Amino acid sequence: MEILEIARRRKTVRKFSKKSISMDDIIYCIEVAKEAPSGMNSQPWRFLILTEKEKKRRVREICEGEERKFHEKVKEPLSTWLKERKISWEKKFLEEAPALVLVFSIKKFPYFNQSTWLSIGYFLLALEEKGLATVTYTPPNERAIKEFLGVPAHYKLESILPIGYSADEKEKEERMRVDEITFMNGWGK
Amino acid sequence: MEILEIARRRKTVRKFSKKSISMDDIIYCIEVAKEAPSGMNSQPWRFLILTEKEKKRRVREICEGEERKFHEKVKEPLSTWLKERKISWEKKFLEEAPALVLVFSIKKFPYFNQSTWLSIGYFLLALEEKGLATVTYTPPNERAIKEFLGVPAHYKLESILPIGYSADEKEKEERMRVDEITFMNGWGK
Repeated sequence: MEILEIARRRKTVRKFSKKSISMDDIIYCIEVAKEAPSGMNSQPWRFLILTEKEKKRRVREICEGEERKFHEKVKEPLSTWLKERKISWEKKFLEEAPALVLVFSIKKFPYFNQSTWLSIGYFLLALEEKGLATVTYTPPNERAIKEFLGVPAHYKLESILPIGYSADEKEKEERMRVDEITFMNGWGK
Repeated sequence: MEILEIARRRKTVRKFSKKSISMDDIIYCIEVAKEAPSGMNSQPWRFLILTEKEKKRRVREICEGEERKFHEKVKEPLSTWLKERKISWEKKFLEEAPALVLVFSIKKFPYFNQSTWLSIGYFLLALEEKGLATVTYTPPNERAIKEFLGVPAHYKLESILPIGYSADEKEKEERMRVDEITFMNGWGK
């Protein structure tokens, strides 16, 4: 299948089916992600897979605590955007997805966050190729999660990717056309 | 072809052949990149394609001016890493590649840089699928380039991607194994 077809098919998913997933598929996605280029080839990414129910539950609890505060204060236009999509402080997917993949970067390396997000791009396409879904959830309180999991301070938790089969009926958000976001030999042209 | 195969085959390239490239292939890569998810679906990426010789030359000149200063001051371990790879202040690829794709992000959006680098991940895999090569060059003086090109201040130049067919004989840098970068249900495990 062409990458364009995979990229177009892929949508963000926040509801997961109970169907179990294959650990081989997750490993496949990490095999892909780790091929990404990085500053000085430092490979500043680390992947922590959580499948244990109690650990996922606790991660959810930590995130929801902070999300509640965030959603109380959220302003326009984000508040309308969230309401229309029924996105609240509740993050059931952190507990309900069969696995969470926590993506960390190593802060001392050049371009650690750019490199790590580039590799997340690789990861997402590989996931879609395997028929699996996720949302690139960025936890509001990475420090508390790192403490709970015993992760040293020089790592940054960039994203939590809940992994599973989609049970989300929402359609993919629309994208702009290429000609709306591309210029040729001059800005605005 | 499997994404894993494409990801493994892809390497960073800093020397390009004179063979011309198809604009359709670049557009294909942008078609792929724009399917990436983004904070609030803001799609905070813009792509500026430069093919005009004089514009590429000037971009090179601006970058090399700053690179010279940087390379005079560069410290270990980066200086050895650069020397071993014969990477100097010279950035011929900015002029010699048939096209430059400048990737900008829009700073006002949530997670604008994470989203944009994720989309660059998509872009790189699409490029490899088309047999094209690049290096994710991060210019040291984005402000001067934006000025030259008339790009408003609220855009950030994230990367310049020189695009062409590879004439670079260097092998791909090695990657760590999955088990060296992946933990299961606990940090370090």
